[in-house]
Amino acid sequence: MGDGQVLELLTPIAALAALAVAGLAAHLVLKENPGSPRIKEIADAIHEGATAFLRRQYTTIWAVMIVISIVLFVAPGWGWRASVVYIGGALSSTAAGFLGMHIALRANSRTANAALSGINRALKIAFRGGLVMGMSVVGIGLLGIFLCYTWLNNPTFILPYSFGASSVALFARVGGGIFTKTADVGADLSGKIEAGIPEDDPRNPAVIADNVGDNVGDVAGMGADLFESYVASTVAAMIVGLTAYSTKGVTLPLFISAIGILASIVSVGFVRVRKGKDPSYALNTATIVSVVATAVGSIIISAYVFGWGVGRNLFIAILAGLLSGLVIGLTSDYFTNNIHRPAQFIAYEAQSGAAISILGGFSIGLLSTVLPIISIAAATIVAFMAAGFYGICLAGVGMLAVTGIIVSADAYGPVVDNAGGIVEQSGMPKKVRKVTDSLDSVGNTTKAICKGFAIGSAALTAVALFAAYREVAKISTMDLLEPKVMAGVFLGSGVVALFCALVILAVGRNAYKMVAEVRRQFKEIPGLLKGKAKPDYARCVDIATKGALRELIAPGVLALSMPILIGLLLGKAALGGYLAGSIVTGLVFALLMANAGGAWDNAKKYVEMGHFGGKGTPTHAAAVVGDTVGDPFKDTAGPSLNILIKLMSMVALILAPFL
Amino acid sequence: MGDGQVLELLTPIAALAALAVAGLAAHLVLKENPGSPRIKEIADAIHEGATAFLRRQYTTIWAVMIVISIVLFVAPGWGWRASVVYIGGALSSTAAGFLGMHIALRANSRTANAALSGINRALKIAFRGGLVMGMSVVGIGLLGIFLCYTWLNNPTFILPYSFGASSVALFARVGGGIFTKTADVGADLSGKIEAGIPEDDPRNPAVIADNVGDNVGDVAGMGADLFESYVASTVAAMIVGLTAYSTKGVTLPLFISAIGILASIVSVGFVRVRKGKDPSYALNTATIVSVVATAVGSIIISAYVFGWGVGRNLFIAILAGLLSGLVIGLTSDYFTNNIHRPAQFIAYEAQSGAAISILGGFSIGLLSTVLPIISIAAATIVAFMAAGFYGICLAGVGMLAVTGIIVSADAYGPVVDNAGGIVEQSGMPKKVRKVTDSLDSVGNTTKAICKGFAIGSAALTAVALFAAYREVAKISTMDLLEPKVMAGVFLGSGVVALFCALVILAVGRNAYKMVAEVRRQFKEIPGLLKGKAKPDYARCVDIATKGALRELIAPGVLALSMPILIGLLLGKAALGGYLAGSIVTGLVFALLMANAGGAWDNAKKYVEMGHFGGKGTPTHAAAVVGDTVGDPFKDTAGPSLNILIKLMSMVALILAPFL
Repeated sequence: MGDGQVLELLTPIAALAALAVAGLAAHLVLKENPGSPRIKEIADAIHEGATAFLRRQYTTIWAVMIVISIVLFVAPGWGWRASVVYIGGALSSTAAGFLGMHIALRANSRTANAALSGINRALKIAFRGGLVMGMSVVGIGLLGIFLCYTWLNNPTFILPYSFGASSVALFARVGGGIFTKTADVGADLSGKIEAGIPEDDPRNPAVIADNVGDNVGDVAGMGADLFESYVASTVAAMIVGLTAYSTKGVTLPLFISAIGILASIVSVGFVRVRKGKDPSYALNTATIVSVVATAVGSIIISAYVFGWGVGRNLFIAILAGLLSGLVIGLTSDYFTNNIHRPAQFIAYEAQSGAAISILGGFSIGLLSTVLPIISIAAATIVAFMAAGFYGICLAGVGMLAVTGIIVSADAYGPVVDNAGGIVEQSGMPKKVRKVTDSLDSVGNTTKAICKGFAIGSAALTAVALFAAYREVAKISTMDLLEPKVMAGVFLGSGVVALFCALVILAVGRNAYKMVAEVRRQFKEIPGLLKGKAKPDYARCVDIATKGALRELIAPGVLALSMPILIGLLLGKAALGGYLAGSIVTGLVFALLMANAGGAWDNAKKYVEMGHFGGKGTPTHAAAVVGDTVGDPFKDTAGPSLNILIKLMSMVALILAPFL
Repeated sequence: MGDGQVLELLTPIAALAALAVAGLAAHLVLKENPGSPRIKEIADAIHEGATAFLRRQYTTIWAVMIVISIVLFVAPGWGWRASVVYIGGALSSTAAGFLGMHIALRANSRTANAALSGINRALKIAFRGGLVMGMSVVGIGLLGIFLCYTWLNNPTFILPYSFGASSVALFARVGGGIFTKTADVGADLSGKIEAGIPEDDPRNPAVIADNVGDNVGDVAGMGADLFESYVASTVAAMIVGLTAYSTKGVTLPLFISAIGILASIVSVGFVRVRKGKDPSYALNTATIVSVVATAVGSIIISAYVFGWGVGRNLFIAILAGLLSGLVIGLTSDYFTNNIHRPAQFIAYEAQSGAAISILGGFSIGLLSTVLPIISIAAATIVAFMAAGFYGICLAGVGMLAVTGIIVSADAYGPVVDNAGGIVEQSGMPKKVRKVTDSLDSVGNTTKAICKGFAIGSAALTAVALFAAYREVAKISTMDLLEPKVMAGVFLGSGVVALFCALVILAVGRNAYKMVAEVRRQFKEIPGLLKGKAKPDYARCVDIATKGALRELIAPGVLALSMPILIGLLLGKAALGGYLAGSIVTGLVFALLMANAGGAWDNAKKYVEMGHFGGKGTPTHAAAVVGDTVGDPFKDTAGPSLNILIKLMSMVALILAPFL
C-alpha cells in the first residue's frame, strides 16, 4: 500500500477533480447551440434579471460581512486571521453560487433548443447545467476547508470560514426565497387568476421575474444552503475529532468528503436515458451509485486510518448518516410526488373545495415529518453509541458526502423549468413543450428529494454543531431540569414560529406590490394584453429585488441577535437548550412546510393532468389555492428554517469563547 | 387569629360553596320560562342529540376505564386503592361534564326567550348557564382531591385521580372536538356553500348536530380539559411540596385553590351590564376582580402558613402563574378579536383571494405564539428562582386558581351561540337575533381568552407534571448532551405533528360523510329544501357520534402508548426529553392552531359586518375558506394538543415507579 502522504493528497485532489468536472461541464454547456434569436432574447432577459438581483444582493451582503469581520477582528479569542477566514468563507460561497447560477442560466436556453431534437440530448445539457452548481459547491467547499486547515492547523479556527458561508446563505436562501415567491405568487395572482392568461405567458410583466426567481431561489439559494451544511458539518467533525482522536480524527472527515466527491463524479457517468425508461430513472441510478460508492469507500478509509476495531464503529456512524439522508429524501418524494397516494389524496379532496384541500395538504405535511424525525433521532443514537459525539458529527459528514450529486440533480430542476418557460414564451411547437414537461416532472422529484435532504442535513449539521458547541463552550451538562435550560428550549421553539411568520408575511406584502405593478402595466401599456406591446419586465424584477432585501432585515437580525441575547442573559447551558428547541421545532416546521407545499403543488399538477375534471373545473380552482398557499411554505419559509437553525448554532459557537 | 383547624376547613368549605353556587345557578336557570313550543322543540332536539352522544361516549370511556383500572390493580407500586381513586377521578370529571352540559342545554332556549325582553336578562341567564359548568369543575375537582388526600394521606397516591380525569378528558375533548367540527364543517359545506341556505337554517339536516357539537365540544370538552389541568396542577404541587416543605407544602396548593374559588364566587356579583357599556365589560370585570382577589388572598395565606420570608417567595411563584395566564388570555384575544388589527388584516387580505388570506392567518397564528411562549418561559424561570420546583408547580396552581370564573365565562359562549341558533330556527324577529348576536360576539372574546388560558395552563400543568416526574422517577439529571435525551426531544416533537395530522384527517373524513348524508336527504326527502318537510336530524347526529368515537382510537392509542414505549426502550431520562419535546412543540402548535383559527373566524365575521364589500362578495368567499380551514385547527387539533401533552406526562408519572 501507499503511505500517509499519498492519502494526504486525497482531499485536494478530490476537490480539484470536482472543480475540473465543473469546468468541463460548463464548457460542454456553453458550446451548445443557444438557439434562435427569440430564445436568446428571453434567456438574456432572465440572465440580466438574475445577475442584477445577485449583484445587488451581494453588495448588501458585503456591507454586513465587513461589519462582522471587524467584530471578529477586535473580539477576544478571534482576531485578524478569523476575519480573513470569515471573508474567505463568504467569498467561497458567493463564488460557488455565481458560477452555478451563471451556467444554469446558460443551460436553460440550450436545453430548450435541444428539446427540439429529443429528450436524451436535452436531459444531458440540463443535467450538465446543474452539475456545475453541484461540483462547485463541494469542490470549492472542500478546497476552502483544506486550505484553512493547512494554514491554521486548528479546526476551531476554521469556524469563521463556516460562519462566512452561513452569512451568505442567509441572504441567498432567505432573500432568494422571498424574491422567488414574490414573483411567482405575484405573477400567478395577476396573470393566471385575474387576467386569465396562461402561466409563462410573455404578456405577463412578472414572468421574467418569475423565471429569475427559480434561479436565485432554487439554484443559488439551495447551493448556498448546502454549501453551508457541507462546510459546517465537516468543520464540526474536525473540531470534535481533534479531542477524540487528535490528528487522525481531524483528517477522517476530510477523507470521507473527498470520497463522496469521487463517488459523485463516478455516478455522473450513469446519467443517461435508456430506451423505454423514465428519465427519473437516470438520475435516481446516479444517486444510488454515489451512495453505495461512498459507503464502500468510507469503510475502506476508516479501517485503513483507524484499524478495523475503531474504524468499523466510525463507519457505522457514517452509514447512519448516509441512510437517514436517503430515508428523508425518499419520504419527501413519497409525500409530494403525484405518482403516490398523498398528493393524489389532496387532489381528490379538492373536489370538496379549497378549504378541505388545504386541510388535507396540511395533514399530509404533518404526517410527512414523522419518518424523518425518527430517522434523525435514530441516526443520532446509533452514531453516538458507535462513536460518541464524534460519531454524531461523522453521521452529518456521511450524509453530506453525496452533496455533489444531490445538488446537481436539484439544480437540474430550475434549468428544465426555465427551459419550459422559454419554449412557451418563444412560441415553439407543442411537442417540444411535451419534452420539457416530461423533463420538468423529473425535476420535481429531484427537487423534492433534495429539499428533504437539505432539511435533514441541516438538522444533522445543527446537531453536529451542537456537539461542537459543547466542546468549544466547555459545557459538561445541559440539564432540562434546570429551568433556564427548559426556558431556553421554549424560546428556541418560539423563535422558529416568529421567523416563519416574518418570512411568510414578507412574501405576502411583496406579492401584493407585484400584483399592483402588473395591474398598472396591463392598464397603462396599450395593447399589452393583446400581445402587441412588450411589458416592462425589469420593473417587476426590481420590485422583487428591493422587496426581498428589505424584508430580509427583520428575520436576519432575529437570527443573528437572539443567540447572543440568550447567551448573555441566561448563560451557556440555556443557550444550548435554546439551540435544541430551535433545531427540534425547526425540523418539524421545515418538513411540514416543504412537504405540504410540494404536495399541494403536485396535487394541482395531478388535476391538470386531467384527473377529477382537469383544468378549468372548481376542483382545479381549489387545487390552485392549495398550490398558492404552498408556494411560500415550500420555497421561502421551509428552506429558510434550514438556515435559521444552522446560523444560530454557528453564532453560538462563535460566541462560545466569550461565555 | 383562628388556628390550623379552621384553616383546614377552608378547602372543603370552598369546594362545597362552589357546588352550592352551581346548584343555585342551575335552579335559577331552570325556573326561567323555556319559551314557545317551537323553541322547546328545537332545544329538546339539541338536548337529545347531546345526551345521546355523551351517553355513547361515556359507555366507550367506561370500557377503557375498566381495562386501565385493572392494569393499575395488578401493577406493582399501585394496587386496588389506585383503581378506586382512578375510577373516582374519571367519575368526577364525567359528573362535572354532565352537570355543566345539562344546564347549558337548558339555558340556551331560556336565553333565546329572554332575548325578547332585552339584553341584560338574557346575559344573566346565559352566564348562569355557564356558571354551573365553571363551578362544577372547581367544586368537584377540589372536593375530590381533598377526599383522596384525607383518605390516603399521600399526594402521590392521588395521581390516579388525576389520571382518571385525563382519560375522560381525552374522550371528551378529542372526541368532542372531532364531533363538533364534523357537524360544523359538514353543515357549512353542504348547506351554506352548496345549497345556498343560511347558517342555522332548520332545513339543513346537520343543523342540530352542529348545535349539539357546540355543547359537547366547547362545554363538556373544555370543562373536562380544565378539570384535568386543575386537578393535575394541584396534585403535582402537592407531590413536590411534600418533599420541599412536608405537610405545609401539601396543604398550600389546596388553600390557594380554595381562595381562587372564593374569589371567583365574589367576582360573579360583578357580572351585570351597565347602561351604555359593552356586555364584554361585565365579564372582563369579573375576571379581573377574581385575579386580584386571588392574588391578595394568596399572599395572606402564604405568609400565614410559611411566614413572611418563605411565604413571600411562594407568592411570587403564584403571581408569576396568575400573570402569565392573564398575558396568554389577553394575547389570544388581541390576535383573534376583530376589533384589533390582526383579524382585520386577514379580512383585508381576503380581497386578494383565499390563498393570501390563509397565508395571512397562518402568519398571524405563528406570531401569536411568541408572547405566550415568552411568558411561560419567564414564569418558569421566575417561579423556580423564587421557590425551586415547588415554585414552578405553584405557578400552575396560581394560574388555574381562577378556573371557575374562566370556564363560566367560556361556557357562556356556546349557550348564547345556541340561543342565536334557536332564534333563527324558530323564526323569531330580527331584533331578537341582534340581541343574541351582540351577546355572541362577547362569547367569542371569552372563548378566545379561555382557549388561550386552557393552552397556557396545559403547558404550565405539563411543566409541573414534569417537575413531579423528576420527583417520582427519582431522576437527578436529564441532560440534552445525552443523545437519548436529545432523541427523546425529537420524538416528543414528532408525536405532536402526528397527533395533529390524525385528528385533522379524522375531521376531514367524517365531514365528508356528513356532506354525503345531507346531500342524500336534500335529494331523497321531497319538499325539504322548500321547508315543507322535516329533515332527519338524528341521522346526522348519529354519523358525527359514530365517526368521532371511531376516529378517537388512533390518536388515543398513540397518546397512551408512546410514553410507555419510549420509557421502556430508551429509559427514564429519554422519557423526560420526550415530554419536554412534546410540551414545547405542542405549545407552539396549540397556540398557532387556536389563534389562527380564531382569527380566520373573526375575519370572516368582520367581512360579514359589511367591511371590504360584505357578504356575498368574492372577499367573503375567500374569508369563508379561511374560516373552514380554521375550524378543525381551533376546535379540534388545537385543544386536543392540551390533552396530549398532559396525558402523556401523566402516563409517564404513573409509569415512573416501574422504570
